[in-house]
Formats: sequence, C-alpha cells, structure tokens
Amino acid sequence: MKRAELTVRQYVDGVVGGDRAVLARAITLIESNAPAHQDLAQAVLTELLPRRQEAVRLGITGVPGAGKSTLIEALGTWLTGRGHRVAVTAIDPSSSLTGGSILGDKTRMEKLATDERAFIRPSPAGGTLGGVARKTRETIVLFETAGYDVVIVETVGVGQSESQVRSMVDFFLLVLLAGAGDELQGFKRGVIELADAIAINKADGDGLAPAELCRTGFAGVLPYLRPATEGWQTRAHACSALTGAGLPELWNVVEAFARATRAGGAWERRRGEQERSWVRELVREGLEERFRAHAGVAAQVGALEADVVAGRLPATVAARRLLDLFGGGAD
Amino acid sequence: MKRAELTVRQYVDGVVGGDRAVLARAITLIESNAPAHQDLAQAVLTELLPRRQEAVRLGITGVPGAGKSTLIEALGTWLTGRGHRVAVTAIDPSSSLTGGSILGDKTRMEKLATDERAFIRPSPAGGTLGGVARKTRETIVLFETAGYDVVIVETVGVGQSESQVRSMVDFFLLVLLAGAGDELQGFKRGVIELADAIAINKADGDGLAPAELCRTGFAGVLPYLRPATEGWQTRAHACSALTGAGLPELWNVVEAFARATRAGGAWERRRGEQERSWVRELVREGLEERFRAHAGVAAQVGALEADVVAGRLPATVAARRLLDLFGGGAD
Repeated sequence: MKRAELTVRQYVDGVVGGDRAVLARAITLIESNAPAHQDLAQAVLTELLPRRQEAVRLGITGVPGAGKSTLIEALGTWLTGRGHRVAVTAIDPSSSLTGGSILGDKTRMEKLATDERAFIRPSPAGGTLGGVARKTRETIVLFETAGYDVVIVETVGVGQSESQVRSMVDFFLLVLLAGAGDELQGFKRGVIELADAIAINKADGDGLAPAELCRTGFAGVLPYLRPATEGWQTRAHACSALTGAGLPELWNVVEAFARATRAGGAWERRRGEQERSWVRELVREGLEERFRAHAGVAAQVGALEADVVAGRLPATVAARRLLDLFGGGAD
Repeated sequence: MKRAELTVRQYVDGVVGGDRAVLARAITLIESNAPAHQDLAQAVLTELLPRRQEAVRLGITGVPGAGKSTLIEALGTWLTGRGHRVAVTAIDPSSSLTGGSILGDKTRMEKLATDERAFIRPSPAGGTLGGVARKTRETIVLFETAGYDVVIVETVGVGQSESQVRSMVDFFLLVLLAGAGDELQGFKRGVIELADAIAINKADGDGLAPAELCRTGFAGVLPYLRPATEGWQTRAHACSALTGAGLPELWNVVEAFARATRAGGAWERRRGEQERSWVRELVREGLEERFRAHAGVAAQVGALEADVVAGRLPATVAARRLLDLFGGGAD
C-alpha cells in the first residue's frame, strides 16, 4: 500500500521533534533518485539546515573481519550509556553490486539497534560512489537535525570509499587486527595517511600480545608519516570490542582531537573545505552527466574515441570536437 | 630574436626526418599554452599520428635519491649501444613551483645527453598536473614519430604524478633503495600497486647485501598484491646504475613483459584504454574550464559556496543553481 507523501512541514517537524519513523522516511526520500523526490528532499534540507546542531562526525574503516561492526556496537552502547545520542550509517561500495548493504547491518549491532538513543541506517544502495556519498552526506544533516551528537559512518577498505568517508567526517578511525597482513593492507592503500587514529582491535586473550606488538610497531612508524590532520599526531591504540577494553580511552582520543583542532582552527577549516569540495564535486558530476546525456555528444563519442585509439586523431582534437558539440558556457 | 614559425609541413618533415632541432621546436610548440600555437600543434600531431612507430614506453619512478637519473643514464646508454634509439622526458610535479625542472636534467645524464641515438627533454614546466601530462603525452607521439623505439618518462614520488605516468606508459618501473625507509614510502603511497617491476638500486659494494635482503623481502610480499598488469607478476630485482650490474637483466624483464602482454592482449587493451581515458580526462578538464570561465557562474560561485559553508543552503541546491547558470547541453 502506498503511503501518502508527507509535506515539507511534516518532514521538518518530525525530524526536529525526534520522530524516528519520520526520520527514516526522510532518509528514504533523500535516497530516492526520482526527480520529484529530490526536489522535495532539497526543500526539506533547506528548512532543516539552519536548525542542526553539528555532531562529532566519526568515520570508521578497516578490512572485512577487523571487527568494525562489533566495535561500533560496543562504542555506541558505551556512548549512549554516557548520555550521547548516536547515529550510525555506512558507505558500502559493494551494495550496488550485491543489491543490498552488507554494512551498517542492524543484525550485527543487535544491542545498539534496539537502543532508544541510537539510530542505525544501512548504506544507501545502488548508483555511483559519488551518488551514494551524496545521500550519506545529506543523511548526516538529518541525523544532526534530529539531535544525534555522535554520527558514525562506517566503510570497508575498498576502492575510493575511504576517501569519500574521510571527506565528510571530522575524525577518521582505522580499525586493524594484529598480524594477518592487515597492517600491510592498510599501507598498501594509503589509508593510514587518512587516519586520525588506528584502533588495533581484538586485543583480548591470545590477541593481547600481538596487538601490543603491532601498536609498538606503528608507534615507530607513524611519526614519520604526514599527519592526516594538521596539528594532530595520529597514534595507534589497542582495544577490544569484545571486552570493551580501551574503548573509553579511544573516545578520549576523539575528544582530545576535537579540543585540539577546534582550538587551532583546523576543525572549522576542514568543515568549510569539505562543504566547498562537495559543491565542486556535485558540479563536476552534473557537468559530466549533462555531457553524457547530450544527444550530439552521444552520437559522436564512440567514433571519435575509436579514431583516437586507432591513431587517426589526436586526443586533444577529439576532446575539443566533443566539447564544441556540447556547447555550454554561453552567457 | 624571434624565429619565424615553421609550417605544419616543415614540422612534420623535420620530425619524421630525424631533425633534432625541429623535434625540439615541435615539443616547444606543443608545450605552449598560446591558442594559436595549440592549433598549429594539433595540426602537426594530426599529420604525424599515422606515421608513428609505437615505442616501448617505460615509466620510471622513485623517491629522490633513489638514483633514477643515474639508472636512466646507464640503461639508456646500454640500450643505444645495442642499437636502440632512446628518448627521455619527465613529469616533474614540482616544476610549477620551482619554475624549472629538476628531472630529466641533462646535467645529470651527461653521457646520454651527448649520445647521437638519444634525446633528452626536461619536464614541461608550469600549469596543472593535467596540463603537464597532456604535453608529455603529445611529446611521446613526437618521439615515436621521430623513430625513438624506447621512450622513458621519469617522475618523482609526489602526489598524483605517478598515476599520470602510469596512465601513459606500457611498463612502470619503481626504483628503490634498500633500507632508509624507502620500501615503506613506496607502500605508503600505493605506488607498488602500479609497478610492473621494482629495481632495488645501488646493489654494489656495501649495498649488495641490503639490496638482496630487500629483494627477498619483496619476493615474499609481491605475490599477495594485486598485479599492476593483468597476467604479469611484478618482481623485485637488484641492480646497480653505478656498475651496470643487473641492467641487462632489467631490460630482459621489460622485453619478457612486452612478449607476454602482447600475446595475452593486455598490452593492446591497456593502450586503447589509455587513449580513451585521456580523451575523457581532456573532456572533463575542458568542461570545468568552461564552467569556471562562465561569467554568470564566476559571479555567483563564491556567494553560493559561502552559503553552503554557513549552513544556509544545501550543497545540492547550490550545485544545481550553478549548473543552471552555466546551461549547456542544449541540443
């Protein structure tokens, strides 16, 4: 049965008033690719923007199996117990392939999923990574307007999703396991350069000693890497999502980061730069979308590219012809 | 004194005929940002394209001090001694800052610079990395038309220049030194994922044992990384640009790579993909350039971005307004 669409006012009042059902519907609205929904979504966002209280935005990444979900469950529950309101979502680059999210899965965060002070939303599905990122950024606005003061965005270490998450959060946490080549995988992808802290998870039982060894290893290396955030030294910390050991200390790190970078201005500067970059990214995507949708371009692009590949035409000439077909930019 | 401009015919005949002075002027023409020069350059390239013999395009990267220039000098001289004709250029991302190239410097390749069968051209200066890459790609076409069968493009491990070089060469060589954290720096930037071979340089005298140790270390790691080229296993090789040890073996690796990937089709597929990507990159740049140059956009973009940063306007709305101002795409 199709539900009647809410009005802008109903969305705004519901989200601001903490109505979980309306918040969920607002996120669904934002995630819709239908033009009418997008217009409505933008009207809702325009109303909501001035009313939001900015949260601490925390990105969490790590290879599959590192225990990200368990860590979010444990950290999130600890935070709600201390009076915080915690919203969790995810960017899952595989969701467009699998047709559904494997991350931010409520079944893997059972306690947090039934916590009154928490809200979990799986990754938006489908579309390009840029499209998914747009939806996640706007979902963060909804979370903040609804009064969540800690927003967690989870992602898995695949492709460009980590840079996308980094570009929308204040603090970026890399979750690793000692041994098993995970440290190497982190290095391989340049992810360590993005991280404000490294959590070496599963530091419990037999895992305690390897985690400590791994932590010491990072302690020797990290000072030589370019810091992810100006004026902040990234450090590795051992913790256990299972026993909860090290989680309060991890949150202390986040709070120390917020204090230090707010005082130094880096916090605000990053947020401003993130917003500006986002506009530019949307413009870039919009330009390319219009370009691809242009009938004259679409009719010629294949033949021109084939000419370039065959060495019949310089790439610069082909590009110029396509741009001239497109036109645009006339005042 | 200003020289008279050559005609398209003079450029074409000079380059094809192996006239070094005309080749140098043709590269200067390609590097010029003046619209009239660019038109002439494209006319020359259009004439030259069907006449080129494709060379083996070899990219070389590594941190400063790894001995790239010395290695190119030694390998290049060895190659010309075997009948090859070798052209060398560079992409130096710092040249726009320093106002001049620090790479592809003839003073660091004295022997090769005076070799009749070699041609050395410093990095194009100035402009964006994309602009520099465009010039280098077109210079490669000139080299190939002029009969150079080995084209070497050098770059330093900074920012995105390595991906740019990777996107225009057949074979990508990473030059490292044993110890001194160089292996780590390689990992950090994800460059190893781009490399078809790793040369551990300065494997001479006291450096022999550490180089061998480093090589063994890579031998254990490389099989677990995704190969840079489909159907090819990247390996590490010890060599010495100083003594020449290992250089013939290194060239054997390049030749084995060419045989294997030509047979499997990966060689041709990559070249085709490189050309298509290049056209798309030029289109992307052209679109953004036209966008930025648009008077209506330029008048509004600052205020709209400020509104977004201040939380007065959703980014999506700001981007849409800018795109609507730009227009374009009307058939």
